[in-house]
Amino acid sequence: MTDLSPDQLATYRSTQTAPDGFDDFWAGTLAEAAEHDIEVRLSEVPTGLRTISTYDVTFRGYAGQDVRAWLRVPAHTTGPLPAVVQYVGYGGGRGHALQNLLWASAGFAHLQMDTRGQGAGWSLGVTPDQAPSSPQVPGVMTRGILDPATYYYRRMFTDAVRAVDAARSLDVVDNSRIAVLGGSQGGGNAIAVAGLRSDLAAAVAFVPFLCDFPRALAVTESYPYKEIIDYLMVHRTEVEPVHRTLQFFDGVTFASRATAPALFSAALRDTVCPPSTVYGAFHEYGGEKEIEVWPYNGHEGGGILDEERALAFLRGRLGPST
Amino acid sequence: MTDLSPDQLATYRSTQTAPDGFDDFWAGTLAEAAEHDIEVRLSEVPTGLRTISTYDVTFRGYAGQDVRAWLRVPAHTTGPLPAVVQYVGYGGGRGHALQNLLWASAGFAHLQMDTRGQGAGWSLGVTPDQAPSSPQVPGVMTRGILDPATYYYRRMFTDAVRAVDAARSLDVVDNSRIAVLGGSQGGGNAIAVAGLRSDLAAAVAFVPFLCDFPRALAVTESYPYKEIIDYLMVHRTEVEPVHRTLQFFDGVTFASRATAPALFSAALRDTVCPPSTVYGAFHEYGGEKEIEVWPYNGHEGGGILDEERALAFLRGRLGPST
Amino acid sequence: MTDLSPDQLATYRSTQTAPDGFDDFWAGTLAEAAEHDIEVRLSEVPTGLRTISTYDVTFRGYAGQDVRAWLRVPAHTTGPLPAVVQYVGYGGGRGHALQNLLWASAGFAHLQMDTRGQGAGWSLGVTPDQAPSSPQVPGVMTRGILDPATYYYRRMFTDAVRAVDAARSLDVVDNSRIAVLGGSQGGGNAIAVAGLRSDLAAAVAFVPFLCDFPRALAVTESYPYKEIIDYLMVHRTEVEPVHRTLQFFDGVTFASRATAPALFSAALRDTVCPPSTVYGAFHEYGGEKEIEVWPYNGHEGGGILDEERALAFLRGRLGPST
Amino acid sequence: MTDLSPDQLATYRSTQTAPDGFDDFWAGTLAEAAEHDIEVRLSEVPTGLRTISTYDVTFRGYAGQDVRAWLRVPAHTTGPLPAVVQYVGYGGGRGHALQNLLWASAGFAHLQMDTRGQGAGWSLGVTPDQAPSSPQVPGVMTRGILDPATYYYRRMFTDAVRAVDAARSLDVVDNSRIAVLGGSQGGGNAIAVAGLRSDLAAAVAFVPFLCDFPRALAVTESYPYKEIIDYLMVHRTEVEPVHRTLQFFDGVTFASRATAPALFSAALRDTVCPPSTVYGAFHEYGGEKEIEVWPYNGHEGGGILDEERALAFLRGRLGPST
Amino acid sequence: MTDLSPDQLATYRSTQTAPDGFDDFWAGTLAEAAEHDIEVRLSEVPTGLRTISTYDVTFRGYAGQDVRAWLRVPAHTTGPLPAVVQYVGYGGGRGHALQNLLWASAGFAHLQMDTRGQGAGWSLGVTPDQAPSSPQVPGVMTRGILDPATYYYRRMFTDAVRAVDAARSLDVVDNSRIAVLGGSQGGGNAIAVAGLRSDLAAAVAFVPFLCDFPRALAVTESYPYKEIIDYLMVHRTEVEPVHRTLQFFDGVTFASRATAPALFSAALRDTVCPPSTVYGAFHEYGGEKEIEVWPYNGHEGGGILDEERALAFLRGRLGPST
Amino acid sequence: MTDLSPDQLATYRSTQTAPDGFDDFWAGTLAEAAEHDIEVRLSEVPTGLRTISTYDVTFRGYAGQDVRAWLRVPAHTTGPLPAVVQYVGYGGGRGHALQNLLWASAGFAHLQMDTRGQGAGWSLGVTPDQAPSSPQVPGVMTRGILDPATYYYRRMFTDAVRAVDAARSLDVVDNSRIAVLGGSQGGGNAIAVAGLRSDLAAAVAFVPFLCDFPRALAVTESYPYKEIIDYLMVHRTEVEPVHRTLQFFDGVTFASRATAPALFSAALRDTVCPPSTVYGAFHEYGGEKEIEVWPYNGHEGGGILDEERALAFLRGRLGPST
Repeated sequence: MTDLSPDQLATYRSTQTAPDGFDDFWAGTLAEAAEHDIEVRLSEVPTGLRTISTYDVTFRGYAGQDVRAWLRVPAHTTGPLPAVVQYVGYGGGRGHALQNLLWASAGFAHLQMDTRGQGAGWSLGVTPDQAPSSPQVPGVMTRGILDPATYYYRRMFTDAVRAVDAARSLDVVDNSRIAVLGGSQGGGNAIAVAGLRSDLAAAVAFVPFLCDFPRALAVTESYPYKEIIDYLMVHRTEVEPVHRTLQFFDGVTFASRATAPALFSAALRDTVCPPSTVYGAFHEYGGEKEIEVWPYNGHEGGGILDEERALAFLRGRLGPST
Repeated sequence: MTDLSPDQLATYRSTQTAPDGFDDFWAGTLAEAAEHDIEVRLSEVPTGLRTISTYDVTFRGYAGQDVRAWLRVPAHTTGPLPAVVQYVGYGGGRGHALQNLLWASAGFAHLQMDTRGQGAGWSLGVTPDQAPSSPQVPGVMTRGILDPATYYYRRMFTDAVRAVDAARSLDVVDNSRIAVLGGSQGGGNAIAVAGLRSDLAAAVAFVPFLCDFPRALAVTESYPYKEIIDYLMVHRTEVEPVHRTLQFFDGVTFASRATAPALFSAALRDTVCPPSTVYGAFHEYGGEKEIEVWPYNGHEGGGILDEERALAFLRGRLGPST
Repeated sequence: MTDLSPDQLATYRSTQTAPDGFDDFWAGTLAEAAEHDIEVRLSEVPTGLRTISTYDVTFRGYAGQDVRAWLRVPAHTTGPLPAVVQYVGYGGGRGHALQNLLWASAGFAHLQMDTRGQGAGWSLGVTPDQAPSSPQVPGVMTRGILDPATYYYRRMFTDAVRAVDAARSLDVVDNSRIAVLGGSQGGGNAIAVAGLRSDLAAAVAFVPFLCDFPRALAVTESYPYKEIIDYLMVHRTEVEPVHRTLQFFDGVTFASRATAPALFSAALRDTVCPPSTVYGAFHEYGGEKEIEVWPYNGHEGGGILDEERALAFLRGRLGPST
Repeated sequence: MTDLSPDQLATYRSTQTAPDGFDDFWAGTLAEAAEHDIEVRLSEVPTGLRTISTYDVTFRGYAGQDVRAWLRVPAHTTGPLPAVVQYVGYGGGRGHALQNLLWASAGFAHLQMDTRGQGAGWSLGVTPDQAPSSPQVPGVMTRGILDPATYYYRRMFTDAVRAVDAARSLDVVDNSRIAVLGGSQGGGNAIAVAGLRSDLAAAVAFVPFLCDFPRALAVTESYPYKEIIDYLMVHRTEVEPVHRTLQFFDGVTFASRATAPALFSAALRDTVCPPSTVYGAFHEYGGEKEIEVWPYNGHEGGGILDEERALAFLRGRLGPST
Repeated sequence: MTDLSPDQLATYRSTQTAPDGFDDFWAGTLAEAAEHDIEVRLSEVPTGLRTISTYDVTFRGYAGQDVRAWLRVPAHTTGPLPAVVQYVGYGGGRGHALQNLLWASAGFAHLQMDTRGQGAGWSLGVTPDQAPSSPQVPGVMTRGILDPATYYYRRMFTDAVRAVDAARSLDVVDNSRIAVLGGSQGGGNAIAVAGLRSDLAAAVAFVPFLCDFPRALAVTESYPYKEIIDYLMVHRTEVEPVHRTLQFFDGVTFASRATAPALFSAALRDTVCPPSTVYGAFHEYGGEKEIEVWPYNGHEGGGILDEERALAFLRGRLGPST
Repeated sequence: MTDLSPDQLATYRSTQTAPDGFDDFWAGTLAEAAEHDIEVRLSEVPTGLRTISTYDVTFRGYAGQDVRAWLRVPAHTTGPLPAVVQYVGYGGGRGHALQNLLWASAGFAHLQMDTRGQGAGWSLGVTPDQAPSSPQVPGVMTRGILDPATYYYRRMFTDAVRAVDAARSLDVVDNSRIAVLGGSQGGGNAIAVAGLRSDLAAAVAFVPFLCDFPRALAVTESYPYKEIIDYLMVHRTEVEPVHRTLQFFDGVTFASRATAPALFSAALRDTVCPPSTVYGAFHEYGGEKEIEVWPYNGHEGGGILDEERALAFLRGRLGPST
């Protein structure tokens, strides 16, 4: 273990700072997206399940581009239900309709957003990333990284914000009881959305990614953070602009703007999203907050126990399902 | 890829043979277990789910020893329902109550058996293996391997047969519509049970393990089969008794005794359970049978697509859920 | 070594076939590109070298999009010179102006094309790939692979064909003495261009990539071919369309259309571009041809000896430099 | 190297503490074993050696269960001889009669104890571990780890204590001149026995294992310590009871009870048994003590030089062999 | 496993041929060495052992250069004893005086030769290799490989032949009962000596190295054979002279000249000295011969069981020790 | 990253000290070499290049032994030119005449020295190392390491000093404008030569090796430094003499004697030549000095950017080429 001890984590603070224009950059980006109607389209999918109804969802995300999702709700329910908007981890997409039945089985409306241009790794995706690809390290971490305006995560975080709008547009959803949730990249997304919206009832981020870039690049040799290191190994003269771009996308800064109650988790042996980087965001988080720490786990974190705790946390914050 | 091509798989036949006394050995073993009442004990578990009711199950398996399981059924159902008895893969246990919601969500009574002495690997288990441990390679593949009477899989296969008895004892289950199902070691279990019982409505084995030992030991360098190779590296003089023991536990021979309709899957790049070993069992399988082959997959096989196809297969064989 | 022996290579033939519409597809693609003027722009670069003059080149490639290159010529020369158009290997770009001085030092006009969207790996690139990115495995091998019209290599091969037009437009180049040359992906490019143009004086392909996909996907576990395998592991239902797309981009088929004299090399221990796949293209090659085989080498092939032999080969085919 | 420097080692102290009931636990355990007569059985083995006589030994260990050993003595000797009771490293057993001739060749009666349930790794064993196996990580480190009463090492340390009783019962042995010795797990055994018996003439522990668990689990990623980490990764809620059990088996605490003169060794690059963990026990050791430190070695420690030094040390403590 | 099956091994024959001048080359080399008196120098070493007397030996080997060895004999013996001349494996030297006590304990005079220029790997050596070092791959496999006269193994095999002369010069040795023995490189040495001397009572070669170079270079990727492949990867134009040199040093050819009764061993999973290469030599071996085959072992072969069998074999061939 | 941060590097100082007799040792060694005339022999090589003339060079190095080199000069030049004497990295030789055209293309006389006994790794060499080889770890780091007089680097550094004499003897070279340059081992050579000669116009050392042995052996696990660790693992009793020998060859001490202006580079993620070891030498360097630090690179350092900067640096120090 090369990261900090529990005692050190308790007092650690990230060195990341918000760049000039951070709030304007995001306000402008979201305003641009909002020029497009959300235009949610649903079509029910025959899954063979008896207790859950499943819908293939399309909505307009960044720059009005179509983004896909799954909506799963308890069968024969009209709602309004509390809702969980879920974001997925790096490399994956929304997956298969038969996967990920937990939240609907627990009585939530569950909107699982696809990830643009990902989804050929551990789970399927179907949403393309509509942007030219400058020379970059394979993956998305360095796609368009020389300018905040072209960086991949500008598009993805905007999609994520818009997914909440998509959820709000659904009759089955109780708009006052929407939570965002995700693990790793999905957790990074949840923090970003929590920093960009004021209408969330809760946010859950398991072992979140995309937090505290200065620390992450200094202490981890693991992918996906290492994609940035690989890029700078070859693009030796671009250290400055890369770090400047990352300032616009750091969970540390999003966290400082957030107000919804939040549950984090971190794992002391996590080399992919080192616990110090999670604490970097957690300590700045602006809303009520709690964190679960797994002392003997790596990036798998608490696994199903993280979800079990999130279920209890969301019940407490969002109220009963029926 | 060092295993056979599709054309070669179509005509490949295992060299494994049934040892003298195979059927008597298993008849005796099961009779011994049957001396103990199945004594199924259920206690409902508060999971927070709304659409599924979950029970912690204990029944008497090999030598009357307690074996644990989860029973998941659609909430508010009295049945009788078609049932899926599921066995899990190597190293895992029955896992957490919140996991594996597919079969109950699809309207089946779902009994997921724990695996004795396993369950500290990728998923939790709670059932001990009650037997002395002779010098063995870490894992269970060589536990008691010098004699069929003491081999680990004698106990586990007996538990698996008894799990069907446990399912039959439940009011919610329609006894004429019980299927066994599993992947990898779970698939090996399903094949063994299909060879040892005549009252099953169907059997499903994804990329099954524990089939065609002679071929497996000749072509794979992967664990868990490699545990046996590791053992013989040190126990150089025990090659004969080890192979003799394995003859009593080979899916090839169980398959030849089976009568229930079966769905298999195999993956052409699977180095853990090479496709030839799966075909070794498939070609001998005595009941109606079909096989799904995944050309670019390893031991993950078809993943959720295997389950999706199994769902359709079981609907066809077991009939509707409600 | 799992690939073929020299004797087997001598008689091996690829099973790849040209798909219906292959020639029309490429004629159409090139015609579309040709609607844009080549518009070569040169600007001299101060390198500090005394014997070589270097120019930063921009020309219009696929769909008229800008593609960059280096032009290196012996200092104080007006030509017309024989020319070498060079393509680079997977992951790299045109690199730095001070690199790769061999061909200009040998008296050739040397145009080294950048590779769109690559160039963050072992050498720098600056040309973006202007296309949306559907869910794909990191890298470019599966970008747009579900349709020949969207596949990455449609754009790249078109760029490569246009690079020859760019060379032809230069005063310093003798248009009757232009060769294409490259190693690995660069060799695949050279073969594709040789199959798509009839005005080349020679083609050189060291350990070429992008040849004989059916064989490559069957025998190698190495990247970049493995990107396609990784994709099909997750996109299990897309085996057919992927193989259909690859038919439009296989060096085997390009080779069968080629007429320029060619030098190939292959390495018997090459697991990245197995020698059988190279022979798959070589045996179909339509022009005069020779091949150098390195018995103890992997994908590094003959290294500088490949270049030394190419230098002699090009002298023979293109004549003296001055 | 992530462990401490020589200067830091000199002042390092373990944080491990003796749990309440430590001494009672062990007194009770040994008393229970002592209810069974030691019942040593010897049978001479025809080895073909001329200078050494070898006997296959069986004695009663933990709970009176049979434990095997080798006894090697110089041929044609009646004694009484000084004796070395040796314990072996993790995964191995007593091995083959023709191995490990050093101590008998040096004139000692040499009793090499087999290790229950191990002996399928690097050397053969024949003694079973008679206990049920709860879900555990492959290996023995987590077998029964939830309770000191069921933990594997309770049985093994008891066997080790009883091996000294077995040696004392032999005519050829001078009871006032018995030493215990071992490397790695064998060294851990030697320290435990030194802490549990007051009648030893000396103890030798090369790069001992099973010392200073709190430090070991914090600083090493190597097996076998990592088995415990792997267990806690899945059994996330059992951190407390696991650490409590380990308190009853830590060499640090055994060392604090020991009185026999001891020789330790440690290696500064040892990642299996990090030098700080060895020093954790060494600094607490209650008897006269010395330690050999190997600056450039890993877990192989001093190898034959460790044995050479132990031979000199034992000569000094136990006196001449004849 | 990529090597041959047992059936194929039974009929496999090496393609290696004796080069013109093979016998003259070796006759000349040995004659040259014989111009130097063997000049054996012994000095007793105080080891602390009681049953074995140990001597540090120096004799004149290749070109009269000093070569070191250990002589171990049962204490208080005058002989004449049967003798075992042992050669060690690649990278090692004669080791430490306290190691390797088996043969003397079994009543043999045991002369263990050091290996020139090796002995910094797994066991210590003290004999330098006195020859200039042309550019070579680290290790000795390619030292001087461009010419049989300068090849490293010319010097080493000559040392090995001379070690038998050294043994013969000792009073304690019965000259009519001398065997050579070794494993891996030591086995290659034993075969070479058996091919070059007619006065041996037996030869033992465990999993011998340096046999059947054409096959070895074609089928193995393991070191030390791979040193030659590495060399030819860079020295691409020297394939011919390297193979010619190796013809003068191949165990296949030495075996065809041998007459002493021999025991070989081979292991079917040995990737360092693949079983086919061992059979390549075994099938050509000119004397009486037997071979032990280990089906589940790698290069460790039979380990102590190989030695146990050799002990029985040597008893049968050399007669009793006292 | 386990090495120091930029702030720590700024103040770090090596603990290495010059041994008694350091200067006499080197004065004596060089005087001995100088007894042999430099005897430079040149023969032009037909490369096919038009802008560069290439010569195969032989000169007398350590003990008058022949050392090879390439001389490359701009074609049709008579000079006198500024000169770059280049040394190559570990394992390589002078390579092929067609490689490494940068310095001659930039207008320098470029003398690239071969490395004795190396040159079978990544580039070809032809110069043998004429010395007996005591037991050593494969490679050259421990060849003769027990005594400064026999250590490999005594011969190599002397060759390197003599290469400057060879350059000085050439008509085409302006003796007042000679620089030494190299990367890794080549950089170590450059520093050593800078410490041993007072007639250099400049020295350039990219990520230099052979600096600050005490630190290197403490912080890196990478080869080639690790060869020394491997040696001491087996030669456990030779720690003292090995460290004493290394004192005579440490770049830290050479640097303290140097006077020529120098350019260094270091890379913060370099585990082969950790940045602290480079700073160990840099801080002691006696002449004017500057250092380029690459924050995201490993041992590749700045690559072509290192060379680009060296080109500018040498222009500034050596003046124009024509």
